[in-house]
Amino acid sequence: MLKGNLIYGQSGGPTSVINASAAGVFLEALAHKERIEKVYGAHHGIVGILEEDFFDIGEESRTELLFLKQTPSSILGSCRYKLADVEEDESDYKRILEVFQKYNIRYFLYNGGNDSMDTCSKISKYLRKQNYECMVIGVPKTIDNDLMHTDHCPGYGSAARYIATTVMEIYRDATVYDANQITIIEIMGRNAGWLTAASTLATLKGGGPDLIYLPERVFDIERVMIDITRVLGQKGKVIICLSEGVKTADGKFLPELNDELLVDAFGHKQMGGAAETLGKIVKRKIPTKIRTIELSLMQRCSAHLASVCDIEDSFLAGSEAVRAALAGKTDIMIAFARPEFGVYRTEIIEVPLDKVANAEKKVPDSWIKRDNTGMEKEFIDYVLPLIAGRPDIVLDEDSLPRFAKLKLVQAGRKE
Amino acid sequence: MLKGNLIYGQSGGPTSVINASAAGVFLEALAHKERIEKVYGAHHGIVGILEEDFFDIGEESRTELLFLKQTPSSILGSCRYKLADVEEDESDYKRILEVFQKYNIRYFLYNGGNDSMDTCSKISKYLRKQNYECMVIGVPKTIDNDLMHTDHCPGYGSAARYIATTVMEIYRDATVYDANQITIIEIMGRNAGWLTAASTLATLKGGGPDLIYLPERVFDIERVMIDITRVLGQKGKVIICLSEGVKTADGKFLPELNDELLVDAFGHKQMGGAAETLGKIVKRKIPTKIRTIELSLMQRCSAHLASVCDIEDSFLAGSEAVRAALAGKTDIMIAFARPEFGVYRTEIIEVPLDKVANAEKKVPDSWIKRDNTGMEKEFIDYVLPLIAGRPDIVLDEDSLPRFAKLKLVQAGRKE
Repeated sequence: MLKGNLIYGQSGGPTSVINASAAGVFLEALAHKERIEKVYGAHHGIVGILEEDFFDIGEESRTELLFLKQTPSSILGSCRYKLADVEEDESDYKRILEVFQKYNIRYFLYNGGNDSMDTCSKISKYLRKQNYECMVIGVPKTIDNDLMHTDHCPGYGSAARYIATTVMEIYRDATVYDANQITIIEIMGRNAGWLTAASTLATLKGGGPDLIYLPERVFDIERVMIDITRVLGQKGKVIICLSEGVKTADGKFLPELNDELLVDAFGHKQMGGAAETLGKIVKRKIPTKIRTIELSLMQRCSAHLASVCDIEDSFLAGSEAVRAALAGKTDIMIAFARPEFGVYRTEIIEVPLDKVANAEKKVPDSWIKRDNTGMEKEFIDYVLPLIAGRPDIVLDEDSLPRFAKLKLVQAGRKE
Repeated sequence: MLKGNLIYGQSGGPTSVINASAAGVFLEALAHKERIEKVYGAHHGIVGILEEDFFDIGEESRTELLFLKQTPSSILGSCRYKLADVEEDESDYKRILEVFQKYNIRYFLYNGGNDSMDTCSKISKYLRKQNYECMVIGVPKTIDNDLMHTDHCPGYGSAARYIATTVMEIYRDATVYDANQITIIEIMGRNAGWLTAASTLATLKGGGPDLIYLPERVFDIERVMIDITRVLGQKGKVIICLSEGVKTADGKFLPELNDELLVDAFGHKQMGGAAETLGKIVKRKIPTKIRTIELSLMQRCSAHLASVCDIEDSFLAGSEAVRAALAGKTDIMIAFARPEFGVYRTEIIEVPLDKVANAEKKVPDSWIKRDNTGMEKEFIDYVLPLIAGRPDIVLDEDSLPRFAKLKLVQAGRKE
């Protein structure tokens, strides 16, 4: 039976709940002293492994580890480091093997999105080729919800709950005056529109976007101007939810159009965001008050609006990853299935890492309205279980969030 | 004893809790049938009065009126209508008197900020001069917290709690990578820095802005660049909270500088925000990743992060306004005092309307750090009681906010 140490790292853009997965990993791993002697947390993901920079999680209190379930962003620090293909440059791989041997790492768990699963997959293949026995498990994470072969991704449900709630609130504010107004809300999602789609829940609840544009469909500016003019004529107020990643027919992101329009005094082109660019385009044609809003980092770090379903799924993804590793499984990512019938409940499955690495799942075309202005019921049925549940978040004595206070003790560096 | 009808209107920028004041007014007024026959809500503030466009609040259920305590923005619609001085143009005043006589309005309650208190004060003086008996009471409201002669303003505590919580969360996200990053967060407040100051609570809790700039002090760009460079050198990450209203020594708002820098392809000047402009200025001198974030409408409509203190103060301001009117008081605004010693508790006072109209309360100079980079303890002691308490918000079956569902029945128009 494989015995040794475990290392866990966080990678890519943070979420409100990636630390719930960390809690799942840590608490489960610490409960298996007979198989796992040391539990390490890599500082800044794979970079911490390459630099032998990790924390000894055995030094943390169980209470504080549980507080990770309500602490946003990546407690260990994150990275955007991409491993070269092993054929091109083996040095990082050699270094990883060296570090794993030195610290007797037999369990490697990596928490991230497509790129991180690629990293995970490459390391897994390399270690196997070198006959170094180590269970490599991917733990999914991304607010973008774009990982293949899983019903949904930890991180998405909370971001979706934030977007639905916030857009409900913004709608109330943006329609309050007795004057025409166009409000353009920019939501994350470079290639997949899952997050932007969640804004449809505000409309479902009686006040939300009139127009929703996802990157899955071509952003036809002329068509969009017709949509806006129509709604403005009907209601005097237009709420637009726009994915940052929408592209025109010739494949340009909106800020790239802006790029053509704006130069500063030094002749430098200015980028700006998708909503800002659309606002400028609309402003030229429709002389109406326009407000642009970016949900920015808030949509991925607002732990106070996380969903219980998402926190528990994230925690479970972490603890299941440890259990799978202990059961001798490797080269897989923990994933979620959806029961075909009846009430939604969480169902864990495992998928081979190379099936998820670098692939992207888009919103199904049939879930987007034919006229490209909103979402169909299939999407609403899909998303509602994922945003379910208000977490019972502990606040401090000043009614502010109480985040985990980890000691993050540097693991003794071995010579 | 004065008998008649009551009309209440909402004016100026909405807040998370102005509807709690509406609930206070409505529930108290409806409980005094012996003195107040009809309770009206003016559609879009004073505009609704001028246009005889109001709702009959007697038609609403008590349960839904209570839901106003968790419903952001102005349920009756708002306006930014400014009354001319009566010496210049009497027509609006004549019209108001006409409408009040027609509907036997003997109680006029107006909910808003400085401008609205000016409206309220002018109407009060006019009605008195015309010998029309009507109790005129101002109900304070503004996230900006800039009304004079009151310890604080309903709306501020909730916005401050939103800002503190959100900046705590953003800090976690904005410091997650192993790379230098400057994050600039723009917060509302054109002339007073109360809202931006609240970001200091995140720093108090262990992760927040390194640099806070309020409009009370000159925004010296050279000095700011020195501040940023210093923090970047020390920590590699800089979090800046910036009031939208900061001005340079020659009295220019930051977007006015931007104005000079940027022209579009048509030669039109582009405004942009304060954070965005600062970001561009910093970018030219420091080649580091810069992210700018505007808390935008969310800071004034995020009812899900309201404070209990603020909701209850707002409700009380409304119900006290009715009680004051019934006690024969007029030409006053309901205000708040702070006990000089001991634990904070809400204490209602009354101030003459013309003392608050058009005046602005700034953050005391001694509460701002001498080096102009943050807040002193006096501010923290001031703000903490105002953000206290997490409201027990009712959610719907999908874990989304349950806003008040008012019927808003048009009051029968009298011929």
